[in-house]
Amino acid sequence: MLKELKEQVFKANLELVKYNLVIFTWGNVSARDGDYIVIKPSGVEYDKMKADDMVVLDLDGNKIDGKYNPSSDTLTHLELYKAFPNIKGITHTHSNYATSFAQAGCEIVALGTTHADYFYGAIPITRHLDEIEVVENYEKNTGKVIIEAFKGIDYMAIPGVLVRSHGVFAWGKSAGDSIHNAVVIEELAKMNYQSIQLNPDIKNFPKYILDKHYSRKHGKNAYYGQKHI
Amino acid sequence: MLKELKEQVFKANLELVKYNLVIFTWGNVSARDGDYIVIKPSGVEYDKMKADDMVVLDLDGNKIDGKYNPSSDTLTHLELYKAFPNIKGITHTHSNYATSFAQAGCEIVALGTTHADYFYGAIPITRHLDEIEVVENYEKNTGKVIIEAFKGIDYMAIPGVLVRSHGVFAWGKSAGDSIHNAVVIEELAKMNYQSIQLNPDIKNFPKYILDKHYSRKHGKNAYYGQKHI
Amino acid sequence: MLKELKEQVFKANLELVKYNLVIFTWGNVSARDGDYIVIKPSGVEYDKMKADDMVVLDLDGNKIDGKYNPSSDTLTHLELYKAFPNIKGITHTHSNYATSFAQAGCEIVALGTTHADYFYGAIPITRHLDEIEVVENYEKNTGKVIIEAFKGIDYMAIPGVLVRSHGVFAWGKSAGDSIHNAVVIEELAKMNYQSIQLNPDIKNFPKYILDKHYSRKHGKNAYYGQKHI
Amino acid sequence: MLKELKEQVFKANLELVKYNLVIFTWGNVSARDGDYIVIKPSGVEYDKMKADDMVVLDLDGNKIDGKYNPSSDTLTHLELYKAFPNIKGITHTHSNYATSFAQAGCEIVALGTTHADYFYGAIPITRHLDEIEVVENYEKNTGKVIIEAFKGIDYMAIPGVLVRSHGVFAWGKSAGDSIHNAVVIEELAKMNYQSIQLNPDIKNFPKYILDKHYSRKHGKNAYYGQKHI
Repeated sequence: MLKELKEQVFKANLELVKYNLVIFTWGNVSARDGDYIVIKPSGVEYDKMKADDMVVLDLDGNKIDGKYNPSSDTLTHLELYKAFPNIKGITHTHSNYATSFAQAGCEIVALGTTHADYFYGAIPITRHLDEIEVVENYEKNTGKVIIEAFKGIDYMAIPGVLVRSHGVFAWGKSAGDSIHNAVVIEELAKMNYQSIQLNPDIKNFPKYILDKHYSRKHGKNAYYGQKHI
Repeated sequence: MLKELKEQVFKANLELVKYNLVIFTWGNVSARDGDYIVIKPSGVEYDKMKADDMVVLDLDGNKIDGKYNPSSDTLTHLELYKAFPNIKGITHTHSNYATSFAQAGCEIVALGTTHADYFYGAIPITRHLDEIEVVENYEKNTGKVIIEAFKGIDYMAIPGVLVRSHGVFAWGKSAGDSIHNAVVIEELAKMNYQSIQLNPDIKNFPKYILDKHYSRKHGKNAYYGQKHI
Repeated sequence: MLKELKEQVFKANLELVKYNLVIFTWGNVSARDGDYIVIKPSGVEYDKMKADDMVVLDLDGNKIDGKYNPSSDTLTHLELYKAFPNIKGITHTHSNYATSFAQAGCEIVALGTTHADYFYGAIPITRHLDEIEVVENYEKNTGKVIIEAFKGIDYMAIPGVLVRSHGVFAWGKSAGDSIHNAVVIEELAKMNYQSIQLNPDIKNFPKYILDKHYSRKHGKNAYYGQKHI
Repeated sequence: MLKELKEQVFKANLELVKYNLVIFTWGNVSARDGDYIVIKPSGVEYDKMKADDMVVLDLDGNKIDGKYNPSSDTLTHLELYKAFPNIKGITHTHSNYATSFAQAGCEIVALGTTHADYFYGAIPITRHLDEIEVVENYEKNTGKVIIEAFKGIDYMAIPGVLVRSHGVFAWGKSAGDSIHNAVVIEELAKMNYQSIQLNPDIKNFPKYILDKHYSRKHGKNAYYGQKHI
């Protein structure tokens, strides 16, 4: 079942490697179709994985199809799909620069137009889970603290987050779109890192330029790219 | 029309990828021939783009030939071609280190002979556009603040600029030459970054060595390379 | 003799290059089978090396098979195999970021879940050998100071170490496993370096998250990956 | 003439690109055979260059063979060959990290065994040429300040130097050996940079370990590698 979506999720997982977002099996991509999600199996090496190895689950986490265990981060993905109904793909990575921000406890503030082309404001960082949350259900509660970090934030205008001391979750309108956003987060993290080293006082850039750049690519007055007739 | 120039501009845009100056569609190259310019279409993926997809415009920005919308940065290119009549190619990138300087609000000062081989002094950084300039015509006014930053500077001796909180515009005698200068800016930015981290007090190097290196490669007494008889 | 193990060790040495852990001949991998070890020959270029060039030694360092001299670091490997009986493979590198920590005299503290997935606590750094230890038997005593650094530490839960002012030794259940751990150490070192630059006050992350992540992948309650029936 | 040496010098110049030591034409390699040197032509692109394009000069700089102008840095090479008679190959690069040290005005101190395997002490940095030296004969006097920096230093035990605000000259027993040393300098520069960022107080490591490592690979008691019978 969901043969085409399995193929998309499989290809998206391989793109994690192509874009240097993961080494070994440190990452996973999923996609949603209605009441089902398709996700990478846990701990299977990328160069041995096949499209048919992808695992199908319902939104309660019951395995519907597939011979492997799903990614150990599956419950986090499911929380996000349920709380953020417009997202259709999720990517999780430990990409190097972004994870350094997560470890340092720093959000990625908007310092330039590259950021504004994709994220309408800072990429937030979650709080730490407390000990009870970890013991009770670590992966599910990782989803919960992400959702908590988006109180008052439009999750489609900020399609990604840093999980403190952990890594990145990025999302979008498809598996491929979520990878695209994960690549952007890593590139922004590297530029932010260097900007802060050059000028520790830099904290933001003019809001009206952020608005302009975001609205060039997003919303009803966007004029970047081609009209698809 | 302008078949050969389209081919040049197309190839130059692919070189952006080869030299790691862009990811996805974050960059654009144009070239000028008399009263026309050829420029990359907006938001078309590099691996799908063809030479024939390049867009031809007159200097007032009227589309003369091409089925796609031109790059969203076209009006910036046009301002530069009109104000700097000797330039025949322009490259725009968000290359990683140079953009970090743009975000930090720092010009790239000349710290060594690598810099002096190409740029006769610091690579300047523009001021921020004010809110009225952004609302009125963002791309055109981006061109205007670049031109303003070159008051008193020879644009052929400093063939590139940082746009504050944005990225790089580099130019030259052809599309290929502008890419070459964009590559150099990124390499200089990385070396400057590291030099400043090693020695925060370093601000320049002797003017007479800058003069010597620049004049080895440029001007009537240049002796680098081969005489083309 | 030990034809298959020679093949494994040979391939593992080539992986050092593939994972950018060494340039030239700066590294070596060995594996143990009972009372014998197989190790890379000293100073032979990777692109000329063959599986049959691997050297077989007994645990006292007597050459049993092979036409070449073994790696100059052989006595360090032997000390480790004798003191840590459960390890079956060892990798030595001067990988760039990890060696920077070794040169700076800094251990690699646990700052996140990437670290906790592999190492149950800080990756320790040895003391300097004193002058007598260097003169008497440098390589053997390098093994001794590593063993000293693991007093009170489970060497299977922390499968690697920084040798001060020198580089990395990583180990595991096979040659390939030791390389895997060496790759992880380099990646952790890079992320730690960046985290510390971003936030010099960061020293650790909650112990209960470290415990959780380590136990997801290790020990009897591990649930990462697939059950191998 | 010198067909084989031309081939070696040609290949060595291509290795500059392979090892990421140069972009475009920013670097050059030469080799010496008796009273002649072979050197790269000036400003010829690496992907168009042929072995037969190499230029032959005598030690006074007279062109003996070749249709092109020699590298603009030829006079620096010649000064070094005359003052350091045991060197048979020289590489000049603007490699990124090492040039950052040159720009920052910092020598590369010995912080670990990777350094000690190749360089018996700090890699020195020259003083700036004064204005008269630049005007009189810039390239020749660049050679002179290198030689001045080696007063009291064995040029075979420290086979390379940083030219202040400029870049690297490395040398050795052949063109290939000089490239090897240039690669090592870049790797050491990167590790030194990171070590200093991690621990600004680090200045050296024990002299008796430096001695031990250098003598493992160099001199009559060397025991690294294979005896060549």
